[in-house]
This record gives sequence, structure tokens and C-alpha cells, in this order.
Amino acid sequence: MVEQKATNVHWHEGDIGRSERADLLGHRGATIWFTGLSGSGKSTVAVELEGVLHKLGVLSYRLDGDNVRLGINRNLGFSAEDRTENIRRVGEVAKLFVDSGVIALSSFISPYAADRDQVRALHEDAGMDFIEVYVDCPLADAEARDPKGLYRKARAGEIKNFTGIDDPYEAPSAPEVHLHSERQSLDEEVAEILALLRQRHIIPAA
Amino acid sequence: MVEQKATNVHWHEGDIGRSERADLLGHRGATIWFTGLSGSGKSTVAVELEGVLHKLGVLSYRLDGDNVRLGINRNLGFSAEDRTENIRRVGEVAKLFVDSGVIALSSFISPYAADRDQVRALHEDAGMDFIEVYVDCPLADAEARDPKGLYRKARAGEIKNFTGIDDPYEAPSAPEVHLHSERQSLDEEVAEILALLRQRHIIPAA
Repeated sequence: MVEQKATNVHWHEGDIGRSERADLLGHRGATIWFTGLSGSGKSTVAVELEGVLHKLGVLSYRLDGDNVRLGINRNLGFSAEDRTENIRRVGEVAKLFVDSGVIALSSFISPYAADRDQVRALHEDAGMDFIEVYVDCPLADAEARDPKGLYRKARAGEIKNFTGIDDPYEAPSAPEVHLHSERQSLDEEVAEILALLRQRHIIPAA
Repeated sequence: MVEQKATNVHWHEGDIGRSERADLLGHRGATIWFTGLSGSGKSTVAVELEGVLHKLGVLSYRLDGDNVRLGINRNLGFSAEDRTENIRRVGEVAKLFVDSGVIALSSFISPYAADRDQVRALHEDAGMDFIEVYVDCPLADAEARDPKGLYRKARAGEIKNFTGIDDPYEAPSAPEVHLHSERQSLDEEVAEILALLRQRHIIPAA
């Protein structure tokens, strides 16, 4: 937990809250947190889910390592400390989206269990759904895909602290959804997540 | 401008973009950036505008010093350096909301012109509307209101770096909207902003 430096602050509750925004949108906000190795297929699933939700009239927004790191987290690198702060900030941004009524699709390697659990706790303490989706895939498969050529660079020593090579990936022990991208179709993966969103009444029944 | 530390990143453009989300919501995203002294009435206008927009079926979300400082910016204080980083991060969060289709209502003292101009540039470079609303009010009036008792504490030396007392407020030179909260009604203030949102086709005509 990061120290609270700012004092003389309090949560400002306006007249319009989560339930009013849910009435407007026809669904609730939630964070769907994709975690897995680089190349495991996190963004592929997130993009597909985003498209399917859009067709259902559900507003979602993707937060990913690429767009967030070019913005709010541009002053962070890939050290263990910076990765932790990266995930902390993303978790807080996701919470704001959930509060606004949007389904946040967070797609980050997020290799450390403690960091993910911290984001989960932040959500659950605020009465928000945190759905951890473990996009599981053997390292060999992810490395064979290597969509951005990053494993090649990591093996060549051109990138340091690369998850799976010289930095650990701590798999979730009890994710809400456990996908196996090397043997499931994209449709199957999306269907599993949609079913959970409906079961939790985050989006309307089909 | 903050140094870009992370490498090997790029903006990930999904199939669903701003225009698709605008079609879903029936309006575009934009940042309405309220700036002014503590006690000038920024949050009062933002809360009222939020309610009016909701009645119009428009999704907005308030970012303010209180809720953001308890979350993403909890590791920042009130030094000049931390204020700058506070505003930088809020600007980046607001940008994400605009991209998602939501109207972000940012309500921060944001006393430094350079910080606000940086946020404006970030938006305009991304083709996003940045509407600076200067909630103008003489210091004497704001201090007489003192809704949170902060001026009293600042005068007593219990709070340091307090804007208007021992830290400067740099008024906007060309805000899109210039309100005078000590002589305008709340309805008048909201009407000015709504008119601009309609003029820019951010929300539908009345």
C-alpha cells in the first residue's frame, strides 16, 4: 500500500452515482483484468471482447501496456518497482472507469501476484467487480508467436527484465476465468467471459 | 514534458474506436477542465453540470482533487513538483475518458498555467476537445466561503503551499469559458458550458 501523502481530502459524493450511470448505460461497470505472458493472447481476447460488447450495446474501454505507458505511465520503466507502480496506477484508473459505468479491459502482463491482488482489493473494498482472466499459454508457445519480436530481443540480451526470460511470472492461483489460448478458439474464450458477465448481472442476459 | 522511459511500446488501435463509441453513446467525449481558487465554486458547477448532462442522457464523470488524490495520486503531496505531476496524471486520465466517449469533468485548483497548457496540448495533439473553464472569484470571496476550513488553516500556518495564500494562482489568459461565481447563478454558469458543448457538436443540439 502506498503512503497517503495528501491530507485534507475526502471522497466527494455527487448526486449522480454509479446506479444512475448504470441506468443510463443499461449495464454496470467492472474491471476485466487480463494477465499472462507477453504473446499469450491477452490483447487479442480483449480486442475481440470489446467488439462483441460493442455489438451488444455495452460500453467498454481497453487499457493496455502500450497506450497507458505512452500516457500516464510514461515516467515508469520496467524495473520491479516501476512495474508495481505501473499496475497500481492502472488499477486506480480502471476503478475510475468502473465507477463511471464503463467496463475496463485491462491487458497487462502484470506478472506479480501481490500487485494484482492489491488491485483486486482496491476494487472489492469499493464494491466493484474485479474479474481476473488468466490467459494461460506455455512459454514455448508464446515465444514461438513472438508477435512483437520481444522474446528474440530478450534472448539476445537487448531487453532486460523480460517476463518469462529474466523476470518471473507468478500465475494466478484462483482467477475468475482461466483461458488456455494455445488450445481454445477466440470465440470460446470470449464466450466464457460473457457468461460470467451475465451471471454477475453486469450486462443484461442474452 | 516527462521523459519517455518505457521502450518497445506503441499505440494499439483496436477495431472499436472513438467514432464507434460516440455512435453508441449519442455524444462525443471531451474534457471540461475547471480551474480556480479553493472555494471558487469549481465542484459546485461540476456537480450541477453532471446532473444536467445526466438528464440529457449524456455520460460524464467527475475527476476531482479529493477522489483522485485518494487513488491514483495518493503518493503525491502539494509541493510544486507534486502538483505538476498531479495535474499531468489527471490530464492523462481525462484523455483516456475522452477516448472512451465520456465527458470528463476535471475539478482541480490547477494553479500553474504551464501545467494546464501541457494538458491542453496533450488533448489537442490527440484531436480531443479541451475546454478550460475559469471559475473566477476574488480571493476575499473564496476565503469568506472557506467551505472546507482550509483558508483558516492556511492563515494559521497549519497548511503550507496553499494556493492564494503562500502559493501562486496563475489565471488562464484565454479560457474557453470564464465564469464569475460571485455574481453569476449556477444555472447561468451551467448554461454557458452547455451552449459551448452544443456549438462544438460534442452533445446534440437542444
